[in-house]
Amino acid sequence: MTDNPFTLIERHACCGGEIHFLSHQSQELGLPTRVNLFLPPQALAGARVPVVHVLAGLTCTQDTFLIKSNAVRYAAEYGLALVAPDTSPRGADVAGEDEAYDLGTGAGYYVDATSDPWAAHYRMGSYVRNELPTLIEEHFPIQVGHRGVMGHSMGGMGALSIALGDAEAWRTVSAFAPISSPSQVDWGRKVTASYFGGYEAEWTQYDPCLLLDSGRIHPGTLLVDQGSDDEFLDRLRPDLLEQAAKAAGQSLKLRRHEGYDHSYWFVQSFIQDHLKHHAEGLL
Amino acid sequence: MTDNPFTLIERHACCGGEIHFLSHQSQELGLPTRVNLFLPPQALAGARVPVVHVLAGLTCTQDTFLIKSNAVRYAAEYGLALVAPDTSPRGADVAGEDEAYDLGTGAGYYVDATSDPWAAHYRMGSYVRNELPTLIEEHFPIQVGHRGVMGHSMGGMGALSIALGDAEAWRTVSAFAPISSPSQVDWGRKVTASYFGGYEAEWTQYDPCLLLDSGRIHPGTLLVDQGSDDEFLDRLRPDLLEQAAKAAGQSLKLRRHEGYDHSYWFVQSFIQDHLKHHAEGLL
Repeated sequence: MTDNPFTLIERHACCGGEIHFLSHQSQELGLPTRVNLFLPPQALAGARVPVVHVLAGLTCTQDTFLIKSNAVRYAAEYGLALVAPDTSPRGADVAGEDEAYDLGTGAGYYVDATSDPWAAHYRMGSYVRNELPTLIEEHFPIQVGHRGVMGHSMGGMGALSIALGDAEAWRTVSAFAPISSPSQVDWGRKVTASYFGGYEAEWTQYDPCLLLDSGRIHPGTLLVDQGSDDEFLDRLRPDLLEQAAKAAGQSLKLRRHEGYDHSYWFVQSFIQDHLKHHAEGLL
Repeated sequence: MTDNPFTLIERHACCGGEIHFLSHQSQELGLPTRVNLFLPPQALAGARVPVVHVLAGLTCTQDTFLIKSNAVRYAAEYGLALVAPDTSPRGADVAGEDEAYDLGTGAGYYVDATSDPWAAHYRMGSYVRNELPTLIEEHFPIQVGHRGVMGHSMGGMGALSIALGDAEAWRTVSAFAPISSPSQVDWGRKVTASYFGGYEAEWTQYDPCLLLDSGRIHPGTLLVDQGSDDEFLDRLRPDLLEQAAKAAGQSLKLRRHEGYDHSYWFVQSFIQDHLKHHAEGLL
């Protein structure tokens, strides 16, 4: 075991467990970054527990999902750790990175940028897929190999792409209102033009529909909830995910909820089912 | 019934019910003010439901309690409406009102100021005790007379003082880490000096311990949760509440929780018991 790279910024008792606000120097990002960890009561009592990584959407931080989703109480009940990374590097000092809500700061898309000036620090892909989960499993009481991922919106895209990209490492996956096929919508086109320098083929690693098209199947079921009154439906395109899963033979449980929008009021309404889904697959 | 004074700013489906972000012109405050309302599924289905007013603490807004407390899911389950007012008037234009976290904006203390320049708009006492609950019961499907109140920190003080001050109108009460005797601690002394122009006797209407000392008893049980690692214990003084309740013969269920601090991570850990307490008293 290497020296513990995490600095504890705040610790809060919650639901019998503990929330740790952490920072560490990321090798992938080349910057200090923040991450929040929830350890359930079972971990405090000495057990190693499964972990679910939770990925937030555009404009969010490492705090958003834990504060707004109501996930902690069910993670405590089922005995799951939660890991909530930030949504982009902070302080990369790229010109214009703070100008738009959907590019740069708060909009890392869980991909690795390949084009300058983004490529130096915008490496959230490798950070959330490899560096962060490895460090967490090395330095906290996590059951190695019992790892799931979930997310909302941009984070839902991240969760699906991460789990489809490496189904052995990520045993369970779920998403709220994910961007199902970023390469085909405006948000993703902006990413293509900037982070990928116009090279659209980068999306084959990250676009959930393209991953399914290329035969990347997850042995578990993709649990996806989607509000029918979501104001971003034309960029989320759950219909494309449904088609791609069907064509690929991927098990998908897509639930549409009448009257629900894109907010965390929607996420919290169905969060218990997601934690239960992960618990069933990981425990 | 008078014309509906509320403007609907946002509406979100949540846990089978609806969150309404509202604004209205308050007669007491002499200003427009914001208030959030949760209507549970039972109300949407046509029933009149009991209501619990939720009061937040220093620096908070009408959004804080609903976002951070996890209360909505249990209000939905038990069939309770929630009403979350702001913590002070906004835009009163009193010199210095934005300078300190514990006086002025975000720090209305649920009292009526009696001293200029505060007295014109800083009337959160009459607003939360009378104007707001009356308007809500007139314009939404609330069971009149089935009204409870709960709060956190400054809002816990507000909840206890409101219920002790008019036990007939407020049938149930609970608090998280309340300021138990504001007149005896620094926060309250600042209020005395400003809102009350130095006239300490104003606290007899608002200080939970003084209310108990003067024989104001609530027929229900005061449910109070307090973290033992709360960083503000010396200003909250649960020990004074315990003494005053004992001397007055007031039923008090004060629970101390080892390791918990003052944050909403603490509040969310015990919120279900509070909603259950209100449901049992109001349904």
